[in-house]
Amino acid sequence: MRITTVGLDADDTLWHNETIFRLTQDRFRALMAEVAEPAVLDERLAAVERRNLRLYGYGVKGFTLSLIETAMELTSGNPPGRVIADILAAGREMLAHPVETLPGVDNALAELSQTYRLVLITKGDLLHQEQKLAASGLGDLFAAVEIVSEKDAATYERVFARHGTGAGEAAMCGNSIRSDILPALQAGAFAAHIPYPLTWAHEMADAPTGHPRFAELAAISQLPAWVTGLAVSQS
Amino acid sequence: MRITTVGLDADDTLWHNETIFRLTQDRFRALMAEVAEPAVLDERLAAVERRNLRLYGYGVKGFTLSLIETAMELTSGNPPGRVIADILAAGREMLAHPVETLPGVDNALAELSQTYRLVLITKGDLLHQEQKLAASGLGDLFAAVEIVSEKDAATYERVFARHGTGAGEAAMCGNSIRSDILPALQAGAFAAHIPYPLTWAHEMADAPTGHPRFAELAAISQLPAWVTGLAVSQS
Repeated sequence: MRITTVGLDADDTLWHNETIFRLTQDRFRALMAEVAEPAVLDERLAAVERRNLRLYGYGVKGFTLSLIETAMELTSGNPPGRVIADILAAGREMLAHPVETLPGVDNALAELSQTYRLVLITKGDLLHQEQKLAASGLGDLFAAVEIVSEKDAATYERVFARHGTGAGEAAMCGNSIRSDILPALQAGAFAAHIPYPLTWAHEMADAPTGHPRFAELAAISQLPAWVTGLAVSQS
Repeated sequence: MRITTVGLDADDTLWHNETIFRLTQDRFRALMAEVAEPAVLDERLAAVERRNLRLYGYGVKGFTLSLIETAMELTSGNPPGRVIADILAAGREMLAHPVETLPGVDNALAELSQTYRLVLITKGDLLHQEQKLAASGLGDLFAAVEIVSEKDAATYERVFARHGTGAGEAAMCGNSIRSDILPALQAGAFAAHIPYPLTWAHEMADAPTGHPRFAELAAISQLPAWVTGLAVSQS
């Protein structure tokens, strides 16, 4: 057994993302303070996002549209003063937000890239994800970048076949059990979960228990040793 | 000389797209009739779209956000009645709009796919373009699909290297001189322009004159004969 390819999620695995969404949501709560309790607002926003996911997919633009829709719904179409303009500004600021890589990412990727083909596998707005990768300075470490509309087992099979030697010789690493871990395991890959302090409600799922190809890591700095150990332990 | 690969644009080359944007813009004019003359509205919307292009990229979600921003600007932040809700609804309807392939597309692609590798190369929202391709029923005819954030010479070099035998043995076909023709020629590919009755202002450009690898075709039904003829005329 050998590992040739390492897939990496981007948002909240390589750089902060959910934090930026939460800050925008806090700002939305403040904007709507006279209209709705935070809990009611959050619940309604989550429902709007869920309803729109099939049409909007993932990313900041769809999130911005869902914020506006939530504001309209909760005010019978008459949101106070500058709410809509402020939401539009918040969306633009999210798209222009500086990219802040997570601790240990640069070293871990530099080390892994010496031995393995690294493939970035991420959801979200196409242009925005490309811009974040460029801004991160990590682009040159990746042999390939796949921005996908959904992460299911078929996605991982296809990506690891195209850019590697198949899912059976690949390891996936990410912060979302639902998107990065379960479908990658289902495709036959190894998978390491590195939690981020915050998880979007839509990405919540239970970690697998006792799965032979799964590991829970505390930080990305542990990833190179885990990947290297796979070949040894399975040989 | 041989041609191995044919690249095809999607929107307004394989199916109607600009028509749907224009219908939405007509609806926007009607919604804003009390606020702004159509010419003023169009000009302001074009300016907002141009300003946002760098952040939003191409596609319906960015267009919807730009419509909302235009409505806010022209009403000092207080658009009449249901304007914002109606724009949101219009955006969702565009995303859910049935895909209507253009005349001759099915036959031309079926014929070309027997001899050449077909690659779909398109801008726009990732999820939406995937959904349109699925709805078109044309998906199986393509060896590869590339949804890209920008179409420049480097894009065509990369795509034709990855999915074919390089730009020098590829032909690109599309309705936009600016996005489909000029950069493909610059990359070294052949290129055929098939005009669509409407062109988005941002995509306007002059057709090349006297370029040895360029052709202007009246309809996609002429594409198979033109591609086949390339090998003969250049050999």
